[in-house]
Amino acid sequence: MIRIGILGYGNLGRGVEYAVEANEDMELVAVFTRRDPASVKPRTNVPVISADDAEMWKNKVDVLILCGGSATDLPEQTPAFAKLFNVVDSFDTHAKIPAHFAAVDAAAKATGHVGVISVGWDPGMFSLTRAYANAVLTNGADYTFWGRGVSQGHSDAIRRIPGVKNAKQYTVPVPAALDAVRSGSNPTLTTREKHTRECYVVLEEGADAAAVEKAIVTMPNYFSDYDTTVHFISEEELLRDHAGLPHAGFVLRSGATGANGENKHIIEFSLKLDSNPEFTACVLAAYARAAHRLASEGVTGCKTVLDIAPAYLSAKSGDELRASLL
Amino acid sequence: MIRIGILGYGNLGRGVEYAVEANEDMELVAVFTRRDPASVKPRTNVPVISADDAEMWKNKVDVLILCGGSATDLPEQTPAFAKLFNVVDSFDTHAKIPAHFAAVDAAAKATGHVGVISVGWDPGMFSLTRAYANAVLTNGADYTFWGRGVSQGHSDAIRRIPGVKNAKQYTVPVPAALDAVRSGSNPTLTTREKHTRECYVVLEEGADAAAVEKAIVTMPNYFSDYDTTVHFISEEELLRDHAGLPHAGFVLRSGATGANGENKHIIEFSLKLDSNPEFTACVLAAYARAAHRLASEGVTGCKTVLDIAPAYLSAKSGDELRASLL
Repeated sequence: MIRIGILGYGNLGRGVEYAVEANEDMELVAVFTRRDPASVKPRTNVPVISADDAEMWKNKVDVLILCGGSATDLPEQTPAFAKLFNVVDSFDTHAKIPAHFAAVDAAAKATGHVGVISVGWDPGMFSLTRAYANAVLTNGADYTFWGRGVSQGHSDAIRRIPGVKNAKQYTVPVPAALDAVRSGSNPTLTTREKHTRECYVVLEEGADAAAVEKAIVTMPNYFSDYDTTVHFISEEELLRDHAGLPHAGFVLRSGATGANGENKHIIEFSLKLDSNPEFTACVLAAYARAAHRLASEGVTGCKTVLDIAPAYLSAKSGDELRASLL
Repeated sequence: MIRIGILGYGNLGRGVEYAVEANEDMELVAVFTRRDPASVKPRTNVPVISADDAEMWKNKVDVLILCGGSATDLPEQTPAFAKLFNVVDSFDTHAKIPAHFAAVDAAAKATGHVGVISVGWDPGMFSLTRAYANAVLTNGADYTFWGRGVSQGHSDAIRRIPGVKNAKQYTVPVPAALDAVRSGSNPTLTTREKHTRECYVVLEEGADAAAVEKAIVTMPNYFSDYDTTVHFISEEELLRDHAGLPHAGFVLRSGATGANGENKHIIEFSLKLDSNPEFTACVLAAYARAAHRLASEGVTGCKTVLDIAPAYLSAKSGDELRASLL
């Protein structure tokens, strides 16, 4: 059995708890938290340990799955905990991956651990598709679409506007843009042409709806480059109709072969997820298995999904995989 | 530069010739053939060598890409040539992969080479999707659909019927079946419910159309389990409208997470290819790079796509991949 620890018991941590149960060769041995351990109540009967006492669990946890956020938690936590454990995280700030990789690599190599970073669906499974598709179709163009699904960052941005009590924002790919890519015409698409944004907003008592709507649709970076629609709804409607965290997305590569590029090819990968955190947790669990195996082979340092052969993710042997899946 | 050799100059060999040109770190150094070398005319100015003289090229070819068929060529050729070269093949008889793996592994290990087998799209890129998707969604069901595209095996089967001069057969996925899978309902689908078969047939002078049609639609294994339509056309129409070798396909995994499997997730990978052999050739070229790198690291023996980390396929460095693709 691979002994798994979780650091951080929010939506993602709860998802990992389910994912460990769904993998017969794994057991959850502890949840670590920076909060008061008595305040954290896991669904299963697993001990809750203060993150400050993690070092005492050094030899009782094979892989620690880090379930914090990319903005402030993981840049500190992943290198720090890679000194004690093999670790897996879902660091998703694309532009900062090289720096995060270097920090985790140094910590993990110095202490003989494996750290797998940026595991999830984007980065993660979408990165795999981009890497395979680029290696295969060297002459082509890449496209990534997100949605329809909830963007936590955009929902948070709306909630920070004065007069907003609560909000959910859906990112939606434009069907005509997806169709144009699938046609093989290698279109050049602007930000506005690729996605629209749908906002469901609950106002504070007495707030000015027109002012809130204007603050949303003109917000730089988040909304001003998109066609954005704002729907004002009651808190009851928000909780009833928008409680989930669904997400989805598409990665496509369109390429050409032959003497004059006359033969067109489309590679498409897509996900449709009822629960973004529960699916991300499943990817983390599979790469926790890989981290454990790599560490067992004496590998150390930081790895990403691009550095790990697919067979390392599976509980099946090479013989079984070749006979059943290849 | 990675020095590539091709064995067999049919549709697939011609595709590899294009693929090598599309990879800046590769050069084609020789085409090997079992035919009279004088009868083989590559599109580029590459020497054509008798397969019997391949041993003289042992130190002039880094990777030999085998472009023969799975029925009789590759079971003999891949183990034989793995004694002389690092090799890559597209062996696609799923049921015989374990035996082929064992034969290539023994030959390659004994002589210090790498042999990568079953490279292409199915087995190949579809296998990758099945492996990743199964490792991530442990609780779920797999579906593979092929088409719309030309099945060479089914076209050949029709051509063997007395009275048939020429034929092309298209395998077509049933849209309602694909939609049912995408809905997350995990349907149980019969062979007939998943695919239909469309046949375009040129008759010999004076042949009995009704008898030919009956021979096709009742043919065991190939057609009797499917809804098959037969269109009789002229040779001119066949050459004009059905000259290409397009293909396509879909791999889906439908899974569930949460306390009672209440959250559904769909992973879908699809290909739409104008030229099946040219695309397969692109995948072979990417894995030729991987074979060369693995051999340079001292790895020996047989590998499949499941054993090779994605970064090995790319001409880019780890730093570049993390900064640009992850």
